[in-house]
Amino acid sequence: MSRKFPQLRRDPIIDRWVLIAPERASRPGALVAHPDELPDHDDDCPFCEGREVRTPPELLAVRPINPRPNGPGWKIRVVPNRYPAARDAVGSHELIVECPRHEVSLAHLSAEQIAEVFRAVRDRMRSRKEEGQWRYAQWFKNHGTAAGASLSHAHSQMICLPDVPPIVQMEVDAVNQAGECLFCRLGRVEMETGERVVFDDGEYIAMAANAGRFPFETWLMPKVHQACFDEVSDRGIPTLAGTLRRILQRIDQVLGRPGYNLILHTGPWTQADFHWHFELLPRITGIAGFELGANIFINPVPPEEAARQLRG
Amino acid sequence: MSRKFPQLRRDPIIDRWVLIAPERASRPGALVAHPDELPDHDDDCPFCEGREVRTPPELLAVRPINPRPNGPGWKIRVVPNRYPAARDAVGSHELIVECPRHEVSLAHLSAEQIAEVFRAVRDRMRSRKEEGQWRYAQWFKNHGTAAGASLSHAHSQMICLPDVPPIVQMEVDAVNQAGECLFCRLGRVEMETGERVVFDDGEYIAMAANAGRFPFETWLMPKVHQACFDEVSDRGIPTLAGTLRRILQRIDQVLGRPGYNLILHTGPWTQADFHWHFELLPRITGIAGFELGANIFINPVPPEEAARQLRG
Repeated sequence: MSRKFPQLRRDPIIDRWVLIAPERASRPGALVAHPDELPDHDDDCPFCEGREVRTPPELLAVRPINPRPNGPGWKIRVVPNRYPAARDAVGSHELIVECPRHEVSLAHLSAEQIAEVFRAVRDRMRSRKEEGQWRYAQWFKNHGTAAGASLSHAHSQMICLPDVPPIVQMEVDAVNQAGECLFCRLGRVEMETGERVVFDDGEYIAMAANAGRFPFETWLMPKVHQACFDEVSDRGIPTLAGTLRRILQRIDQVLGRPGYNLILHTGPWTQADFHWHFELLPRITGIAGFELGANIFINPVPPEEAARQLRG
Repeated sequence: MSRKFPQLRRDPIIDRWVLIAPERASRPGALVAHPDELPDHDDDCPFCEGREVRTPPELLAVRPINPRPNGPGWKIRVVPNRYPAARDAVGSHELIVECPRHEVSLAHLSAEQIAEVFRAVRDRMRSRKEEGQWRYAQWFKNHGTAAGASLSHAHSQMICLPDVPPIVQMEVDAVNQAGECLFCRLGRVEMETGERVVFDDGEYIAMAANAGRFPFETWLMPKVHQACFDEVSDRGIPTLAGTLRRILQRIDQVLGRPGYNLILHTGPWTQADFHWHFELLPRITGIAGFELGANIFINPVPPEEAARQLRG
């Protein structure tokens, strides 16, 4: 399909616009994949196995070797954040340390290890949900300094909140008011047209976001309707882990190990219907005055072109 | 007033939340004022006087010396963006070159020169409004690489759009549905409590944003209700220029010449009421997964503390 650019596109779920503007890509320094500026090695890393005393006591750990908490012999550790953005009545903030040795990238872990990460996230969500105090859990991962990471050891974060954040509530409202799940419909439409599909493993579909805010923004979601990530079954997790790993490795190959944010939008703990999904946001463009002033992101790479490159 | 942190605050106008979390400031590398990484000098700068052929023909110029367009002898030039994010049916994108010689910072210009900038912005808004094709003009300034600038010579940008951006429409709706102007009310409340007021020149008030997304986020607006920036009078502009200059210089002194975005929210060209205001956003913190996922910004500096420091 031939298209005219620049093009104002609306998000398929909420009232959010982006400008797809390929001419901006020819601007000096327009697309810079800052490879992770954080060191690959860190002799003082507080997340490495053997330095468990450097973090607060663990909330959860996968310990096939040593069942005693807060010592070595683990595959995954979840600990409270030492510098919490939220706590007590406002929210809780915890860190998921994704591997015992100093790996800096989720993409370099085995699919089995990534599956352990997702199981831990799911189980922490279940625990927090049971506390009854929170309405929403925001899981996210900052990879690389361009994406806001301050420590290189692979880790992700989860912040529980007493209310559903407005942007998630907008998605929830859209799904609940449409009479059908807009994410289910989006998946069907994308599979029919095909031009933005990056990978389809049968259970999960990865696609370049039609109105992606960032170049190569990729969404990953289950094809069968499922509201909350904490409903994911043990059977589904290995497939999900393998597909995410594949997408991250393609992003690394095509863009040269960029920083990225990986965020999860899951159903709120308010009984409202939803369809959980990951949003992968490579950070090779900046966020400047137009983005912050108009809240319209300028994306210099058409999503159809991004999908083509990611399919390889 | 003593406060407990972290604290979830809601914007006084729209449904936007921020987490004020001073403990985050003690995190390694939490607050970094990247002084402008772009060069102070640039022998090849396309915006400098004498290199007018390097930009498209000017749309407007202040030419007290040489009335012939597209040559030297000007104080301000407005030209189309060579790498437009928007154009034709989608929008227009123009650059305001704020001074003829290679100054990198608006704060270093004289108040008279800053007044020339604002007159040019106002006059370009009036011209674009008369074209009848647009509904909104987004003026913004990116200063420094952390704020998305790619050229160091002081300049700002204006993008006209065929619709009002959703975030501005939310503010417009709030003002028009409240039965009174929420910005007028905000100004009154801030002047009464005083703890977030940075400067009050009699006509314009500068205040630390109560729910600021960024540390030291400062809002500047007229105290008397005025919907659109294009209504600003020749008499009001010098005062506004002097106050903005003062605020920018204080930001430079307190934070060490940080990058920043300066954005203008003005009334849309749809007859809806509004109250124009500037938002000054220093970029000494990153935008990471929580900000992008939950759209809740984490601000490690309480606005009351920022105002105290900016008052000096």
